[in-house]
Amino acid sequence: MARGPFYLFSLVLGTLGSLCVLFTIYWVQHWRGGFGWDGSSRMFNWHPVLMVAGMVVLYGAASLVYRLPQAWLGPKLPWKLLHAALHLAAFVLTVLGLVAVFDFHRHSHIAHLYSLHSWLGITAVALFACQWFLGFTIFLLPWASLWLRSLLKPLHVFFGATILALSMASVVSGINEKLFFSLKNVTAPYSSLPPEARFANATGMLVLLFGVCVLYVLLASSWKRPEPGLLSDRQPLLQEGE
Amino acid sequence: MARGPFYLFSLVLGTLGSLCVLFTIYWVQHWRGGFGWDGSSRMFNWHPVLMVAGMVVLYGAASLVYRLPQAWLGPKLPWKLLHAALHLAAFVLTVLGLVAVFDFHRHSHIAHLYSLHSWLGITAVALFACQWFLGFTIFLLPWASLWLRSLLKPLHVFFGATILALSMASVVSGINEKLFFSLKNVTAPYSSLPPEARFANATGMLVLLFGVCVLYVLLASSWKRPEPGLLSDRQPLLQEGE
Repeated sequence: MARGPFYLFSLVLGTLGSLCVLFTIYWVQHWRGGFGWDGSSRMFNWHPVLMVAGMVVLYGAASLVYRLPQAWLGPKLPWKLLHAALHLAAFVLTVLGLVAVFDFHRHSHIAHLYSLHSWLGITAVALFACQWFLGFTIFLLPWASLWLRSLLKPLHVFFGATILALSMASVVSGINEKLFFSLKNVTAPYSSLPPEARFANATGMLVLLFGVCVLYVLLASSWKRPEPGLLSDRQPLLQEGE
Repeated sequence: MARGPFYLFSLVLGTLGSLCVLFTIYWVQHWRGGFGWDGSSRMFNWHPVLMVAGMVVLYGAASLVYRLPQAWLGPKLPWKLLHAALHLAAFVLTVLGLVAVFDFHRHSHIAHLYSLHSWLGITAVALFACQWFLGFTIFLLPWASLWLRSLLKPLHVFFGATILALSMASVVSGINEKLFFSLKNVTAPYSSLPPEARFANATGMLVLLFGVCVLYVLLASSWKRPEPGLLSDRQPLLQEGE
């Protein structure tokens, strides 16, 4: 659990996460007409930005709170509160991202929730809502027994990682779909890889790289609170009364 | 490590995996003109079937070899050979799946590797090739020290899971893209959710469900060889001279 490499890796993660959001903003600002909140395609443009920022980058950061060296020792309650608050902020961004696409569809008379991208995306958001509610109820409120917490903790960690993976898949299918929509009937179609296509493809790959790095720290690194058996041994992360 | 629930879960996994392949076959057979090996769209139809069968279902089965109760005790070498052989078979199906799409593109004068789906897919296949080669070199050939194996084993497990997750994302983006291609300029476009769209969307969700179940058994279940620290503690899975 060396701190030096952890901080170096955190710097890499912070840079990658910031680039994911900045690249998405640059894509829609430079090639797709920028932002608005009026039901037009400029309102839709908030959708990729808010989903990448909420469901991937802030969600990823929130997942790693317990990997901070400062969280390794001492009372856990402040870190639990930070974990829950950051995930709640991620969820708010996500909901705003959904509002952006639903409002755009309604104004443009486009059907809701028909593509596989949308089926996957709405499933990921629903799982996120369940995960947050269950996490709050079981791990933050004081009523649950240590036995119940230790039973559910590996599932909480696993579904946390799963929701991030599903979000990554959703982002990739969404960018792919948007490029097929936008780069048709133009002089430089998607298949000719114009600058926008290369840039947005790279953005998608960057989101995947960021997500994989987060999953590595979450599941496979040795930077974790010094309690044994994060995923495997079903031992408690939480002490009664913390 | 109760065997009863493991076998029940294996039955669920086997059923889900079979359904993934059968649903993909039914989709392209019933709605996309069936199969051929002649550079036409009927040759392309092998692509989704072989990718789902190779990169997801057989890959997933191969990943779980060490979770079989029979593999928990006794010499590990036979199970290592089975693990490597099944992954090699999965890789062969994957390469055939690539041949199907590259040949179709060449015959139809469609550019190769331009979509984000293809960038992700080819990355997943390249990582799969590296993973198999490194796994063979480090864990199957006898030269590597116990120290090196125990150092690399958590990374091998993590990247094994990561490649499966990337494959799932690739399958979803591929089905999504194919439906946008196929269900345009028709009386029942994708957005009206005709039977083909609902069926293929369901196939994509089934692939995700199968993949998540595999990842659960691989990363978070207690059905593992009784050696501590699969992902976290960097303790050896392999004994010298096995």
